[in-house]
Amino acid sequence: MTGAVDFTELAVEGVRGLRPYQPGKPIDELARELGLNEADIVKLASNENPLGPSPKALDAIRNELADLTRYPDGAGFELKKALCEALDIRPEQITLGNGSSDILDFITRVFVNDGDEIVVSQHAFAIYGLVAKMVGANTIEVPARNFGHDLEAMASAVTEKTRIVFITNPNNPTGTWLTKTELVRFMDQVPQRVLVLLDEAYFEYVDEAEYPNGLRLLEQYPNLVVTRTFSKAYGLASLRVGYGVSSPEIADLLNRVRPPFNVDSFALAAAKATLTDTDYVSRSVAENNAGMKRLVEAFHALNLSHIPSVGNFVCFKVPTGVNAMDVYQGLLQRGVIVRPVANYEMPEYLRVSIGTSAENEVFVAALTAVLS
Amino acid sequence: MTGAVDFTELAVEGVRGLRPYQPGKPIDELARELGLNEADIVKLASNENPLGPSPKALDAIRNELADLTRYPDGAGFELKKALCEALDIRPEQITLGNGSSDILDFITRVFVNDGDEIVVSQHAFAIYGLVAKMVGANTIEVPARNFGHDLEAMASAVTEKTRIVFITNPNNPTGTWLTKTELVRFMDQVPQRVLVLLDEAYFEYVDEAEYPNGLRLLEQYPNLVVTRTFSKAYGLASLRVGYGVSSPEIADLLNRVRPPFNVDSFALAAAKATLTDTDYVSRSVAENNAGMKRLVEAFHALNLSHIPSVGNFVCFKVPTGVNAMDVYQGLLQRGVIVRPVANYEMPEYLRVSIGTSAENEVFVAALTAVLS
Repeated sequence: MTGAVDFTELAVEGVRGLRPYQPGKPIDELARELGLNEADIVKLASNENPLGPSPKALDAIRNELADLTRYPDGAGFELKKALCEALDIRPEQITLGNGSSDILDFITRVFVNDGDEIVVSQHAFAIYGLVAKMVGANTIEVPARNFGHDLEAMASAVTEKTRIVFITNPNNPTGTWLTKTELVRFMDQVPQRVLVLLDEAYFEYVDEAEYPNGLRLLEQYPNLVVTRTFSKAYGLASLRVGYGVSSPEIADLLNRVRPPFNVDSFALAAAKATLTDTDYVSRSVAENNAGMKRLVEAFHALNLSHIPSVGNFVCFKVPTGVNAMDVYQGLLQRGVIVRPVANYEMPEYLRVSIGTSAENEVFVAALTAVLS
Repeated sequence: MTGAVDFTELAVEGVRGLRPYQPGKPIDELARELGLNEADIVKLASNENPLGPSPKALDAIRNELADLTRYPDGAGFELKKALCEALDIRPEQITLGNGSSDILDFITRVFVNDGDEIVVSQHAFAIYGLVAKMVGANTIEVPARNFGHDLEAMASAVTEKTRIVFITNPNNPTGTWLTKTELVRFMDQVPQRVLVLLDEAYFEYVDEAEYPNGLRLLEQYPNLVVTRTFSKAYGLASLRVGYGVSSPEIADLLNRVRPPFNVDSFALAAAKATLTDTDYVSRSVAENNAGMKRLVEAFHALNLSHIPSVGNFVCFKVPTGVNAMDVYQGLLQRGVIVRPVANYEMPEYLRVSIGTSAENEVFVAALTAVLS
């Protein structure tokens, strides 16, 4: 009987054509492949916080060890309380996620049917299209303008079939950003029956006067859902915790499809502790600003163009006639992991996360060697 | 404009009628409600391991602290390698889950369309019906026989629309189990185009000669998917880690809908460490056997009937004329949390997890007081 049934043919249509998300190459994987020591590898591929852990997060995790055998608090009572105090929101507006990407999945499962559409920008985060495809929806990709969202064109792309527009501010992988004026004009154009998912994963890094705080737009726009994460400026990527903030009505719907224990006990405790560690976040941002300045200088010195970024990463263009994947491989051989972005329709670019000053120098030296 | 749109009306059909899973009441929640100290509360509501953490798991977690800011290994290379060695399987057969409940969600998303059917037993784990409802499928519930699966009737309930049959062995919350002969006969009756999800969350607790190891049936039945968890005998409920084992073809499909970092770094490390801590698992099982014996004695002494269980929990029936929810509330007032199972069509029963010997005595004393 074995082999009589083709299970791939039995899968739902969206899944049959699905290719999973490709994360940045893990350090231990490269170490295994090249026979290197993990300590000799510099990973600047996943926009992780190079500062190392917040001491408050470490303490919170150690405090949880005695309760290892207990299920997490599925309601996330303590973390929600801390978020409310820090962000001036109410608990019933919050949906906790196993990373903010969980919220992208929830909103799609709640509001998008087979055959519906979502609207995204060219060069937008890959997960939006993946979660839409899983439910059989079509992704309408609107050409970018200078690598950023063309909000006028995105508003025009909304049809009767559109259920969600995904906006990333700042955008990953390009690092471009939208002003409050631009965002408000867009929200005014979009019909209220269309949800707008505003992904603010890199919110904490942005220091621009015209950069909007999505949370302060929720009251005016009931179709808005804002997502944030603890994986970047808060330095908790290993633990997977993020959240969505919306109207209580939408949060109730999102929480219906949320697995009851999607955020584990350690993640809940560490997120709560880091949320009040303003010193850690300040130092993270300061280190990022200094590192960004250094890398931009290096790109200038190497005659490489780059896309100005307000995130903790920056995309640079390889010289004409050079293959970006060859540069990527050359960097890997030197123990430096960056991120190819060909799957973001940017085949001539590579994305590098801002590291510590030591890591940045290793990257600059390796890049200089590879290009010479 | 606020309030003009009813977002619940915009939700997909399955989500509109969805009521989220109700976990056991957390200790801190009861402490807040009753003004009790957490240390004075005995929680026997979630089939958690009462032994406390495995020392090897604690060491593994401490070793991960330095990498708090790094994303997990999305491929779970090291844990899969350890599972292969422990279970005699291959890495390409494995799908890692944020608890084994993640796998229940993945298999439903991969194979079940709007309007399709799944088949479950009466008194089966609530998550099966929830994940089916999310994708718009209908759950066909087959009446139980002596609180256990009626496999003949379940096989007969399979129609052209059936995509998955969910089997739990042993079953939660009833604690009943199926022999290898029964299971094999069932597998031979089910068409191969119908997937069978065999949930073995309580596998490690069962010590019955005729109890089957689902993994050893995979070669013969390519439509079989076996799930296991680290939340019970391995004592890692806080960290959310489980897995599915299947043919490589089905595992490839399940992994397409798996979020790339659904199992976090601490969970991966602790699971790997506990997997080889055979002493911990042996002690867990021995403690469970002794505790089960003690509770069954107590039920006899109190003239309460119970459902014989091979899991780490047991359901007992409240006396005629007594409301089970009153008993539940009476136990809560005495600081003891058990689990109501009215939502499992067992309104006259309560489920109690086996605790430490001290916890079991607190429960017996509280139950005796409540019933007298």
